[in-house]
Amino acid sequence: MTVPPPLKPGDTVAVVAPAGPFDRLLVLRGMAWLRGRYRVRFRQDLFDRAGFLAGSDQRRRDELAWALTDPDISGVFAARGGHGCLRIVADIPWDTVQQRPPWFVGFSDNTAIHLELNQRGVVSVHGPHVGALGRQDDVTRASVVDTLERSMPAGYDVNGLRPGRATGALVGGNLAVLAACALAGRLRFSQPCVLLLEDVAEAPYRIDRALTALRLGGHLTNVVGIVLGDWTHCRGKYGRTALDVLREHASRLDVPAAHGLRVGHGAVNLPVQLGRTVTLDADAGRLRLQQS
Amino acid sequence: MTVPPPLKPGDTVAVVAPAGPFDRLLVLRGMAWLRGRYRVRFRQDLFDRAGFLAGSDQRRRDELAWALTDPDISGVFAARGGHGCLRIVADIPWDTVQQRPPWFVGFSDNTAIHLELNQRGVVSVHGPHVGALGRQDDVTRASVVDTLERSMPAGYDVNGLRPGRATGALVGGNLAVLAACALAGRLRFSQPCVLLLEDVAEAPYRIDRALTALRLGGHLTNVVGIVLGDWTHCRGKYGRTALDVLREHASRLDVPAAHGLRVGHGAVNLPVQLGRTVTLDADAGRLRLQQS
Repeated sequence: MTVPPPLKPGDTVAVVAPAGPFDRLLVLRGMAWLRGRYRVRFRQDLFDRAGFLAGSDQRRRDELAWALTDPDISGVFAARGGHGCLRIVADIPWDTVQQRPPWFVGFSDNTAIHLELNQRGVVSVHGPHVGALGRQDDVTRASVVDTLERSMPAGYDVNGLRPGRATGALVGGNLAVLAACALAGRLRFSQPCVLLLEDVAEAPYRIDRALTALRLGGHLTNVVGIVLGDWTHCRGKYGRTALDVLREHASRLDVPAAHGLRVGHGAVNLPVQLGRTVTLDADAGRLRLQQS
Repeated sequence: MTVPPPLKPGDTVAVVAPAGPFDRLLVLRGMAWLRGRYRVRFRQDLFDRAGFLAGSDQRRRDELAWALTDPDISGVFAARGGHGCLRIVADIPWDTVQQRPPWFVGFSDNTAIHLELNQRGVVSVHGPHVGALGRQDDVTRASVVDTLERSMPAGYDVNGLRPGRATGALVGGNLAVLAACALAGRLRFSQPCVLLLEDVAEAPYRIDRALTALRLGGHLTNVVGIVLGDWTHCRGKYGRTALDVLREHASRLDVPAAHGLRVGHGAVNLPVQLGRTVTLDADAGRLRLQQS
């Protein structure tokens, strides 16, 4: 396992946009907050737009490759999710990144980047985008600083959904993006995993479709536990909820499951270190970091 | 290629619900229309509901297996799409079906069933559900009868999207369902294909995500042409349209493409025989059936 060194005030960090275009005012505000603590670098073309993408594939790929490999940069913050990472992750020099990885912070579409890092043993931070940091939310901001400069909290309270206890690497993120990455052949976890899942605006039947396909395709064979973040705007019209669907799939996989981690597209999006070995104790309602 | 024998008035057909629950009144009306021409059979539990599914997996699987293998049944009509076929297709006795296949009629989620049939060389009908046949639409109804009792029309007018000409088996259907089937390991076209694609309520960035993942995963290597049906409620907020995205992917695959086939979730859903060898001539704006 490769854990980037703790960030320190004054370190250099980069803001990148590997996915969709973003609200400039919010991102500028988030960058202003980051500047209060770190030296912030970004490329002038960060603000490019090309339809639903933050500029061309080449622009976004060059920017991400630069930020992840420049030896002066200790942290890389994604401006926003949306869609676009899958279009460029095959062309990032991951072997170089792996030798001296900075912290990477993002979620949602950036799940595609976390997967690449975590599968290479690199720890990264599933957490708010720069745009979200632009909003007034001191608790989230303080949590981000804590996670990057000190460590992941020793544990999180969760609510049991299916009993049991399991230990593995905490991986995952956005379900729809995870499914797309698996379809693209970029999901290759070879070790026991505790799968973190969240999503937004997916009806329960779509969540079922993604999980059914992932399971039938053999992509979940190393999953030993499931821990759920927020399922924002995921109600359907047929009575069954996202949690009903997720409980059923935990049963099919015969693994413990818990929900209630305040992670994802909800009002609170706590930063969580992916790639760490964790123990999910669904009976005790606790997700514990295994101290290294 | 296995083409079920043409249906005749008086033949026995079955109505099944392998996916989601449906509007009973519409389906009863559709069944009443079918009864005007064929002997209609259905199981008493056709009307079961279990959340977003038309009854349990076992019920839907047993019903579909019965309808596809009963030697008295010459045509099988899906009541509705929605979601659910992928949960049961692995447990259908396809080898038995292949020996004496009936006509299968459906689309959308039933793309999962078409794929199983077409990959085994069986021709099927991408066409309206029984619920849609319950609406007053004599043109669609007459087209369905023509397709099942006579043959596929010699050709369809389409609009060129990317120039060129290609010949292959017409396969595909709903993009999101196709992607889920591929993720589940159930997409294995080994011959040149002209890919039919349509979808509903998918923003352009989602269409791009699915096509990007399918391409990166190597699932489109045998695609020699793309023909597009309707993209219903598929507008996004970033200016790029579904057709923009589809044109880009046709370019990446370096295949001819056309749009404007009146197939899918729009007002008109013409029946089209899948599994047939067709020539897409994007220059002439024509999709031609190769006469066998």
